[in-house]
Amino acid sequence: MGELLRLYAGAMSEHGFTHLDETGAARMVDVSGKSATKRTAVARSMVQMEPATAAAIADQSLGKGDVLAVARVAGIQAAKKTSELIPLCHPLALSAVKVEFALSESDLEITATVETVGPTGVEMEALTAVSVAALTIYDMCKAIDRGMTISSTQLVHKAGGKSGDWSRA
Amino acid sequence: MGELLRLYAGAMSEHGFTHLDETGAARMVDVSGKSATKRTAVARSMVQMEPATAAAIADQSLGKGDVLAVARVAGIQAAKKTSELIPLCHPLALSAVKVEFALSESDLEITATVETVGPTGVEMEALTAVSVAALTIYDMCKAIDRGMTISSTQLVHKAGGKSGDWSRA
Amino acid sequence: MGELLRLYAGAMSEHGFTHLDETGAARMVDVSGKSATKRTAVARSMVQMEPATAAAIADQSLGKGDVLAVARVAGIQAAKKTSELIPLCHPLALSAVKVEFALSESDLEITATVETVGPTGVEMEALTAVSVAALTIYDMCKAIDRGMTISSTQLVHKAGGKSGDWSRA
Amino acid sequence: MGELLRLYAGAMSEHGFTHLDETGAARMVDVSGKSATKRTAVARSMVQMEPATAAAIADQSLGKGDVLAVARVAGIQAAKKTSELIPLCHPLALSAVKVEFALSESDLEITATVETVGPTGVEMEALTAVSVAALTIYDMCKAIDRGMTISSTQLVHKAGGKSGDWSRA
Amino acid sequence: MGELLRLYAGAMSEHGFTHLDETGAARMVDVSGKSATKRTAVARSMVQMEPATAAAIADQSLGKGDVLAVARVAGIQAAKKTSELIPLCHPLALSAVKVEFALSESDLEITATVETVGPTGVEMEALTAVSVAALTIYDMCKAIDRGMTISSTQLVHKAGGKSGDWSRA
Amino acid sequence: MGELLRLYAGAMSEHGFTHLDETGAARMVDVSGKSATKRTAVARSMVQMEPATAAAIADQSLGKGDVLAVARVAGIQAAKKTSELIPLCHPLALSAVKVEFALSESDLEITATVETVGPTGVEMEALTAVSVAALTIYDMCKAIDRGMTISSTQLVHKAGGKSGDWSRA
Repeated sequence: MGELLRLYAGAMSEHGFTHLDETGAARMVDVSGKSATKRTAVARSMVQMEPATAAAIADQSLGKGDVLAVARVAGIQAAKKTSELIPLCHPLALSAVKVEFALSESDLEITATVETVGPTGVEMEALTAVSVAALTIYDMCKAIDRGMTISSTQLVHKAGGKSGDWSRA
Repeated sequence: MGELLRLYAGAMSEHGFTHLDETGAARMVDVSGKSATKRTAVARSMVQMEPATAAAIADQSLGKGDVLAVARVAGIQAAKKTSELIPLCHPLALSAVKVEFALSESDLEITATVETVGPTGVEMEALTAVSVAALTIYDMCKAIDRGMTISSTQLVHKAGGKSGDWSRA
Repeated sequence: MGELLRLYAGAMSEHGFTHLDETGAARMVDVSGKSATKRTAVARSMVQMEPATAAAIADQSLGKGDVLAVARVAGIQAAKKTSELIPLCHPLALSAVKVEFALSESDLEITATVETVGPTGVEMEALTAVSVAALTIYDMCKAIDRGMTISSTQLVHKAGGKSGDWSRA
Repeated sequence: MGELLRLYAGAMSEHGFTHLDETGAARMVDVSGKSATKRTAVARSMVQMEPATAAAIADQSLGKGDVLAVARVAGIQAAKKTSELIPLCHPLALSAVKVEFALSESDLEITATVETVGPTGVEMEALTAVSVAALTIYDMCKAIDRGMTISSTQLVHKAGGKSGDWSRA
Repeated sequence: MGELLRLYAGAMSEHGFTHLDETGAARMVDVSGKSATKRTAVARSMVQMEPATAAAIADQSLGKGDVLAVARVAGIQAAKKTSELIPLCHPLALSAVKVEFALSESDLEITATVETVGPTGVEMEALTAVSVAALTIYDMCKAIDRGMTISSTQLVHKAGGKSGDWSRA
Repeated sequence: MGELLRLYAGAMSEHGFTHLDETGAARMVDVSGKSATKRTAVARSMVQMEPATAAAIADQSLGKGDVLAVARVAGIQAAKKTSELIPLCHPLALSAVKVEFALSESDLEITATVETVGPTGVEMEALTAVSVAALTIYDMCKAIDRGMTISSTQLVHKAGGKSGDWSRA
């Protein structure tokens, strides 16, 4: 092939990003040497809305309406799609996914709990579940409250794996 | 079939949710009567991080590293997957998707602009793009900063369609 | 390339399958000359179950349980995935999808109504919606009634397009 | 967050649905404690058609036409998509999928056999394979026989797992 | 947000890549101003193999084996997945997809023809169809001929659109 | 069911295709008896282009442009989609994916390395990664060089599994 110009050949050591090699190129990190152990992650997101919107969700849920059920299904299915959405995530066989809601006067809190028995953690799966559940709430309520904000999407807790347990302070 | 028990038969009128029928059941709203016109939406999300994390992204980006490029691709691809992720969204042929980043001392701001020529708006596509780009940033930086928070995911602006233009105050 | 052996070269005219060419090879039929008009299809499927299973669904639905809501979401999402599941189906921008349930003593009847403004009909989308909704019911009830049968999956009605309206006798 | 209204808080014990929690909310059941063992499932579906349609399939298949080959591929691929289609299904690494056909005067019988080494069974994968293969047959034959009916979609046999073997009476 | 460091702010004008903005950032090009017209593309790929492998395919195809039928279905389905695989491709409603094979002594030539009525061309769809059909052939034959090479994957012809017709010299 | 005509009943033994049963019907080969061991595959593809195109990629990459980063992400994500694209491939939990580029005067060489701990090899995943990365390069450069050719897509090396190691001569 003649002379090659190796791209990305400049050294970029010690950047600290495990998803980048020493030249800065993205990669799916090698987990073939890690053993499959039980791992759990809990994530949370908040949808801030007008009190009237929260009231409408509450009314509708006290009846038989589907708003939260649709968002829950969307969150569960999104957890299973995580490795398709987040480019450098490993595909994982999830063991359990749970999505829960708590409604206050002007907030809907969404919590997802995900478990696997695998070589890497499920933080991204839990975060993806709450994010897509929140987007689904936005979609169903946007005709009445376009200004809603999704905030505080964050990891609450993780357990298992070499890096051990972690809980938000 | 004998006597049927029609489910969800109780009246639940005037709940205001266009994605629910009069009995509270979810549905994909009928847009067959709406004409295909140009529609634009701009959404934003913020990833709050430690200053050291922001500095690492900046360093890496001034070189040739892929962190923001990976997140940008993830956001663009997610916009195209919106109707697969959000159960009641209509599939739309997107005309343009752009994902932009602005980094400050301890925040990465992500902005997505989406356009279509179609019968419904692209607010959900823009919100999905910034959400998945933000999750991708979290994924790539979580080994160095597990406490990052994704916040202020919101619609900034929309234009086109029967409901007209809207901008966040 | 030397002498070629054209595969599938034997004539197989007049087989009547529009999805096969004259040699029997599968293809996605050319619809580029067909105009985009409004098309509707209604399909139905029945899940036959033990009376105790039907009673459990009814009880659960009179409360706030998610069984039918989950199946409804699954059916709506499957309609949007039709062209991915059925190899020779054209991708279509669906305008509306509705999935309804009627429960009798030992049957759950599922009806899907799908609309598009496009160059081909949405029969497959409606049939796919009821089939996947039925499979979802099976999945959620199989622990209590493994012998359930999905039957009578059929087109009920179609309207629009060059072939015109059709209703099951 | 102020006072929270915990949704779905009413007791709904002993409903028997493993996919619902005690409040009726859908969830992906926790299988993290189940061991990976070999599991098999066989499912069946029937496509009822006009004798002329069955004859056309037979003629076409005795030549080199693709009708059954296309349906077989669609069924195999659908088995792999089961956890994407059925919201509360666990993703499973399938070990084997086989789709077989038997044609009689006015029926096409479709049988799928699926195997895995995993923590849950593959009944849904086998049922999804026959359902999508049947829908594909409908799609390819609908231009000549719109009235076809898919019936008797059911589990024939399962083996492995804690619940043990089961065969349809 | 304090002072922002606008990333990718250095000028990179006149690079000629339509998929990059003036700062080098990837984007989905805006096609909202382009009209929907009929567009066609033809692509080709070659699978080079041992004569014994080609003979096995020919033997198998003269019988009723599925090798080419499976590859044809894979190619057609891949065409529909193009915008999911190629990050900056626009989703397009394909009007027609055809995949053809010609077998010589030690080569299988694969040709795909794709049509749409849309705002952009279908070159990528045709190239994706032949590439995935070729990979499928490799998969089915690799147990008997691991050294097969896929070569000459290229656009043969395109018609329609503002850039007009083009044929390989 | 009356008399059945078993389709594909003619013997076709000794054809050598493991993906076909003895009647020529496609199937997903049974790997339930194979143990999960570490497996690696390396594949390569070449994109042949005008020197001016190669120069534009080099210029753009020495800056901060995204061309190679986008193609790298596309290749990694495609590796994860292999079992969805190639009909008879088994779904595998990939442990690592790496996509590398080497640019010469008129060629871009793409190499993918894939690892798994599983019951089958990852040759198809590596070949799919390089193929989709190559298609992505074509997509981004086609406006300036429509005549590019993708060639020499081939397996370079595999290790692990019952069939042992293999390297291209």
